[in-house]
Amino acid sequence: MAEKGLLVVISGPSGAGKSTVISELMKLRSDIRFSVSATTRAPRPFEEDGLHYYFRTHEEFARMIKEGEFLEYAEYVGNYYGTPAGPVNEHMAEGWNVLLDIEVQGAAQVMAKRPDAVSIFMAPPSFEELERRLRGRATDAEEKILGRLETARLECSQAKNYAYIVVNDDAEIAARKLDAIITAERCRSGRKLESIAEGDFLL
Amino acid sequence: MAEKGLLVVISGPSGAGKSTVISELMKLRSDIRFSVSATTRAPRPFEEDGLHYYFRTHEEFARMIKEGEFLEYAEYVGNYYGTPAGPVNEHMAEGWNVLLDIEVQGAAQVMAKRPDAVSIFMAPPSFEELERRLRGRATDAEEKILGRLETARLECSQAKNYAYIVVNDDAEIAARKLDAIITAERCRSGRKLESIAEGDFLL
Repeated sequence: MAEKGLLVVISGPSGAGKSTVISELMKLRSDIRFSVSATTRAPRPFEEDGLHYYFRTHEEFARMIKEGEFLEYAEYVGNYYGTPAGPVNEHMAEGWNVLLDIEVQGAAQVMAKRPDAVSIFMAPPSFEELERRLRGRATDAEEKILGRLETARLECSQAKNYAYIVVNDDAEIAARKLDAIITAERCRSGRKLESIAEGDFLL
Repeated sequence: MAEKGLLVVISGPSGAGKSTVISELMKLRSDIRFSVSATTRAPRPFEEDGLHYYFRTHEEFARMIKEGEFLEYAEYVGNYYGTPAGPVNEHMAEGWNVLLDIEVQGAAQVMAKRPDAVSIFMAPPSFEELERRLRGRATDAEEKILGRLETARLECSQAKNYAYIVVNDDAEIAARKLDAIITAERCRSGRKLESIAEGDFLL
């Protein structure tokens, strides 16, 4: 049997460059899978059930909440979104490191439920740089930008609740740090010892 | 100022291949220094004070013990050996990751004194493989080999007290794991937050 994979939770404010770093990480490792969310919202054209989302009715979603099937869930503009534990656990058992790219409140739910999760906060090099990035790409109204900056500031204040903080100065270097964190966490003695048999020479 | 380096404690039984792995690690990182031990034994030809050892008299060593200057120390066939904290702390402050290649009892002393230390146990792939390695290279008497195996078994039973266990199947892969552990530990939020100023956006 493959050695059990990790549950890796990554958060970071919009503008921290998470998506770019995660794509760089995918070039470095082939043992990563993304968790797929469940949602009550209607599928958009080309969205496939089980690939982009697990599309569920409100009734099904409610039952899943009741039966504790979610690592986390939240409501957003009238629809529910959540991470079902089942597929995550199956992939981990097969040896995959399962990546959960998730905002801070969802991450807090996952960390509370799963002390085995590896939590990583991706931070911009400075708040000024974050502001530059958010303003640089946005053609949005000032009010909207200010709202995003306020959200980002709140999110950044949660960094201390994560096991690791990776500062994204350079996407390739940040990806190498994520790679190192995954490799290192798989060497943690607690995890190693979990996977060995009673009577092993390391016990 | 450079970001503070790590104190990295590595133990492992004779035959685990620690020295080979550490030399491979030195090819991967240029930010590592070895800790230098103090000893009361006489210098051998070509041994330099401060480079191979800090050579100290019994009186000086006793004073250092009394003043709590050691991270760990022990007596061995009539002489004392120990790791002075001073140079370790200076190198860490300069940003070096200081490597302490040390047996399990010394490592336990360091871990007790320094919760900031990163402890790594280097293990052979199996005890049978360890025995093969120890017998393969030794022209020693059976009695001596059996003694080494017994010591190795005791040492391996301490693996659970280390934060990480790196199994040395292949020296290059094991070195990459050590490299990853150092990179990851430098991203630990506790360490990161220690080095940032009050009022930082991550607090």
